[in-house]
Amino acid sequence: MGRVTERRKILRIRDGAVSTRPDTLVAEEPLEIRLNGKPLAITMRTPGDDFALAAGFLVSEGVLATASDLQNIVYCAGATADGSNTYNVVDVKTAPHVTLPTFGLERNVYTSSSCGLCGKASLDAVRTTARWPIADSPPVRVTPELLADLPEQLRAAQRVFDRTGGLHAAALFTEGGQLLDSREDVGRHNAVDKLIGRALRNGSLPLSRTILLVSGRASFELAQKAVMAGIPVLAAVSAPSSLAVDLAAESGLTLVGFLRGGSMNVYAGEDRLSLREAAARG
Amino acid sequence: MGRVTERRKILRIRDGAVSTRPDTLVAEEPLEIRLNGKPLAITMRTPGDDFALAAGFLVSEGVLATASDLQNIVYCAGATADGSNTYNVVDVKTAPHVTLPTFGLERNVYTSSSCGLCGKASLDAVRTTARWPIADSPPVRVTPELLADLPEQLRAAQRVFDRTGGLHAAALFTEGGQLLDSREDVGRHNAVDKLIGRALRNGSLPLSRTILLVSGRASFELAQKAVMAGIPVLAAVSAPSSLAVDLAAESGLTLVGFLRGGSMNVYAGEDRLSLREAAARG
Repeated sequence: MGRVTERRKILRIRDGAVSTRPDTLVAEEPLEIRLNGKPLAITMRTPGDDFALAAGFLVSEGVLATASDLQNIVYCAGATADGSNTYNVVDVKTAPHVTLPTFGLERNVYTSSSCGLCGKASLDAVRTTARWPIADSPPVRVTPELLADLPEQLRAAQRVFDRTGGLHAAALFTEGGQLLDSREDVGRHNAVDKLIGRALRNGSLPLSRTILLVSGRASFELAQKAVMAGIPVLAAVSAPSSLAVDLAAESGLTLVGFLRGGSMNVYAGEDRLSLREAAARG
Repeated sequence: MGRVTERRKILRIRDGAVSTRPDTLVAEEPLEIRLNGKPLAITMRTPGDDFALAAGFLVSEGVLATASDLQNIVYCAGATADGSNTYNVVDVKTAPHVTLPTFGLERNVYTSSSCGLCGKASLDAVRTTARWPIADSPPVRVTPELLADLPEQLRAAQRVFDRTGGLHAAALFTEGGQLLDSREDVGRHNAVDKLIGRALRNGSLPLSRTILLVSGRASFELAQKAVMAGIPVLAAVSAPSSLAVDLAAESGLTLVGFLRGGSMNVYAGEDRLSLREAAARG
């Protein structure tokens, strides 16, 4: 597709000195995701890996759980007035055995909750929609040293970020800390959806022996995506939100935040941390 | 409401030393926005300023333009099974003279575009929905020095971020660089919606002599919100996307990115920059 970045001429000001120069920007385009021909959601995303993005989004929504749930994904041609293909509309066709949930007006699964809207209802909705529990048996065990090494691996893998500074990144690692896959996107949720969608299409779901790292904050929706994919450990370079921590605690997800240098905070699921200095715990 | 932050017990690891301690997290809860009783959108947000968030969201969607368009906003009681009020559902009632646009399935205005989905269609949708052009007459003029000073003012105003590290921030400044208002939220769009919603309710729209600063990246949707509120200058601490730059160029919005220290990049609307060293431009 070749649209991951775009070039624009800009005015650059550095300590009073002004120059014009070309600059590389991260590309952003809308993607409409259709489910069996019916429009379901629109997301602003960086073009590329669109089928994986759509598939991963539908894992998070509880529609897809295995590769066999997916019949095919196609770009919709003729989506513009002149009949050309924008490559910005994809249609996901599910296999005949797949039962579709009833969706609300919005991309969040919990819109269909009948008990109104509260953090509790959001947690309930994830619990009832999850296709498998986080079931790593024997439990995944990670050391702080292993976790501390992951952000540098992610940065090394972030090719586009270096040029544009405009991308969120996410990566999947083995429980031994080996990089499995990484994605970048202008939208933080999209990078994770792309990872999970690729795993679905590879037949790797549930991802029960992996670690998911995200370059920014850990929101409720990112924790939800980890839980829906069966991922046992979510690590974020920045802060988590209260509802992300609540969901992690309830779902048995290990949630690590502020993973920087040799430091980190563990917000839930601390049993997966291998700590030599257990005596030091206050 | 008192729910802007929440406390949780965490495991803290610093260079091999492990301790347990209480930590302050940014609160995240869903907010359902109803328009004249009908559910329209759900956003994950930091509780507080919910009426402003709903009003600002509806400015971005082209529903509201002035305070007189708004009849009232209320929390919906009885939204939970037990009849209690979660304070997570608001209903916005428009004045009788307001004509409602037809909404698509999703919170983005351009879902209703009939010509399919491409960046161009997104730009068209903003153009046709905008209630006023960016019309600063005489044009707002800013110096690089004035812009360079804004991020520090925003950081000084970010009270919750200091404690949680988990918030996006946005601020409005006068064309002279004086802080008018700032908001923080777990969602980057929400912080801007809250600012614009407060301005609407104060009768300050269009914000034609202001500068909007955001703490992160400048996405298409943030540029859209600036345009819909009539704001002539959008500055971001981090990178813009290609579509944000396209929208800015087309709408006459000055878009500044990577505003850090004495440095910045100007991606569109450079005519509003007062540059003494015009001779240095290459």
